[in-house]
Amino acid sequence: MALFGSPGKLSGLLLRIGQCFSAAASIGFMVSAHGFFNSTAFCVNVRHATCSSIFQRELEEYMSRLFDCVNGDSSFMELWTCMSRFPCFEVTATLSLAAACSSAGVTVLYSRDLGYCRSPQIPCSHFKASILFAFISWFLLAVSSHVTFWLLAAV
Amino acid sequence: MALFGSPGKLSGLLLRIGQCFSAAASIGFMVSAHGFFNSTAFCVNVRHATCSSIFQRELEEYMSRLFDCVNGDSSFMELWTCMSRFPCFEVTATLSLAAACSSAGVTVLYSRDLGYCRSPQIPCSHFKASILFAFISWFLLAVSSHVTFWLLAAV
Repeated sequence: MALFGSPGKLSGLLLRIGQCFSAAASIGFMVSAHGFFNSTAFCVNVRHATCSSIFQRELEEYMSRLFDCVNGDSSFMELWTCMSRFPCFEVTATLSLAAACSSAGVTVLYSRDLGYCRSPQIPCSHFKASILFAFISWFLLAVSSHVTFWLLAAV
Repeated sequence: MALFGSPGKLSGLLLRIGQCFSAAASIGFMVSAHGFFNSTAFCVNVRHATCSSIFQRELEEYMSRLFDCVNGDSSFMELWTCMSRFPCFEVTATLSLAAACSSAGVTVLYSRDLGYCRSPQIPCSHFKASILFAFISWFLLAVSSHVTFWLLAAV
């Protein structure tokens, strides 16, 4: 079966490039914001975006190994070993969303509840741009993750 | 196929009861915290927990309708209509996680970064308990959602 975004297709490659680019943009905007390290949520966001862009190759490896196992004549134990690796991919997508949401919570607190964004010293526009790219990165990662899950279940 | 937590099984019922109880506990702890409405993230958390406990019946309905379609001799168009309903379930789980994470981000900002929790006027223990139950509720909802997705793909 060749779904949109499955490994080996052009759409799959574009999804990965998009993930990497969005994660890099998210890091860039956050690191260029003065004083971002004062908030734990923002630091966590940068850490997760860095992880998801650095470990792109690692994730790609997992996916291809998974499909080698599933498509080959593998025994039940081999298949189980493969499937036990899958959650890494799913967990990365969930952690990306968690990091983006906690940063979004803090930014909403700054801008709407505490009114800190009226002060020019707090670079809220950088925070917002960084969070936007973090959400885009999560969305693309979630699409890949769901396609893998669907293909794995449908084999 | 009868996976753990699939509809019609005792484990499925226990999952739903657990979701409902955790969502209710999350609302209870948050509403009993003085001044929770000053933070947008906390209000969003309460709103999503309320939605996910009130719409339990609605979700149950979606799930059973989905399985009626998939298990019956349905045409491609009918199957497509069913599948287009599925994202409601998935979206609820994702929104629950997003609400819990944004609240967690704000609580970490209060307790670690700004040190507000040292003041007895800010009920941080209530916030933390509410967030803990929101995460439990999300986890149980995510298990149900994945089981449905797996069964749907494997049919």
